[in-house]
Amino acid sequence: MSDDILRRVGAVIDSRKGADPGTSYVAKLFDKGLDSILKKVGEEATETVMAAKDVQTGGDPHKLVYEVADLWFHSLVALAHFGLKPEDVLAELARREGLSGLAEFASRTQD
Amino acid sequence: MSDDILRRVGAVIDSRKGADPGTSYVAKLFDKGLDSILKKVGEEATETVMAAKDVQTGGDPHKLVYEVADLWFHSLVALAHFGLKPEDVLAELARREGLSGLAEFASRTQD
Amino acid sequence: MSDDILRRVGAVIDSRKGADPGTSYVAKLFDKGLDSILKKVGEEATETVMAAKDVQTGGDPHKLVYEVADLWFHSLVALAHFGLKPEDVLAELARREGLSGLAEFASRTQD
Amino acid sequence: MSDDILRRVGAVIDSRKGADPGTSYVAKLFDKGLDSILKKVGEEATETVMAAKDVQTGGDPHKLVYEVADLWFHSLVALAHFGLKPEDVLAELARREGLSGLAEFASRTQD
Repeated sequence: MSDDILRRVGAVIDSRKGADPGTSYVAKLFDKGLDSILKKVGEEATETVMAAKDVQTGGDPHKLVYEVADLWFHSLVALAHFGLKPEDVLAELARREGLSGLAEFASRTQD
Repeated sequence: MSDDILRRVGAVIDSRKGADPGTSYVAKLFDKGLDSILKKVGEEATETVMAAKDVQTGGDPHKLVYEVADLWFHSLVALAHFGLKPEDVLAELARREGLSGLAEFASRTQD
Repeated sequence: MSDDILRRVGAVIDSRKGADPGTSYVAKLFDKGLDSILKKVGEEATETVMAAKDVQTGGDPHKLVYEVADLWFHSLVALAHFGLKPEDVLAELARREGLSGLAEFASRTQD
Repeated sequence: MSDDILRRVGAVIDSRKGADPGTSYVAKLFDKGLDSILKKVGEEATETVMAAKDVQTGGDPHKLVYEVADLWFHSLVALAHFGLKPEDVLAELARREGLSGLAEFASRTQD
């Protein structure tokens, strides 16, 4: 398994831009526009939070994985709306990781 | 560049579990507990939404990439709290992608 | 106009608890359960944020008022799920206001 | 107790606009600008969701009331940033309530 997965997901998302809204969920999201995409990002973040609270009290961990996948997926749709790609996020994460073990995060004050 | 990046980020996060809270941002987050981690997930989702609205009106696209990286990072911390890994999210995304081109998303009703 | 409005909205919401889900939007929300209610709270918060960003760039201010009303409404549904009322929120706000001009907020560190 | 409470909270918030950021929490929020205010709205929505999940599993109901008060308070700060007032939200809620018992909500499809 490699980040080829993210690249492939990104490619599938890209292929839906401008497609007939009737043909797929993502084509319909693109057709509805940015606010609909961002609404889903907010919604999936809320579902991630609820799933994590459920795992804390004995719920199914896979539900949390599922919601995080949904969150990442819809954030990739938001990026694709502006022609941005999963590789851009990975490059940003790599840049931080390269800063001596996420030194950038380490140097942040907790806020 | 490969998802080795995600795996490496996941490994760095894991190495902070149980570490002295004074030594890193992530160690401090783990020490504060699940609610603090989830609060950051919600916060970064909001910042992603705001950055995307800014790009829509001429703002810097990299700001959006930066916020999505923050969102993914903190969702990885939430997963790590429960012993879950980036690979779990990738496997879930691959599972969907394998369903003939994200057929799972395609078959959803827009909600 | 008085907070009789909030009390009346609270009473209408309460009257939907246990009602036939087919009879109203709120009855259906109660029937779907807490997670569906909270999902709406998260969604309306995201819509509030987007509407505010739109007002910042020349959009309709009433759209923001509309989304805040939606946010308050759904948070009242969440409270009602647990038998809590608008008056409880007002009492909490009054308590703070009574602390010499929102001294409680004033004394917080920005976080 | 009346919505005089909301009006008073709104008046206190208004009085902080343009004030020395060092003098109060709200003055500092206004000084930091819209994005900081909206970030708080997103954060308090997340905290509302978490508090509700905690009540569901035996947590303190007043924690939920407290978070909803925080959420309403910060949404009032967002409104005040644009010169809008609590009365505007109450008028919008009254308008809906006047539509024969929240008929507007009742007629919505659940989404």
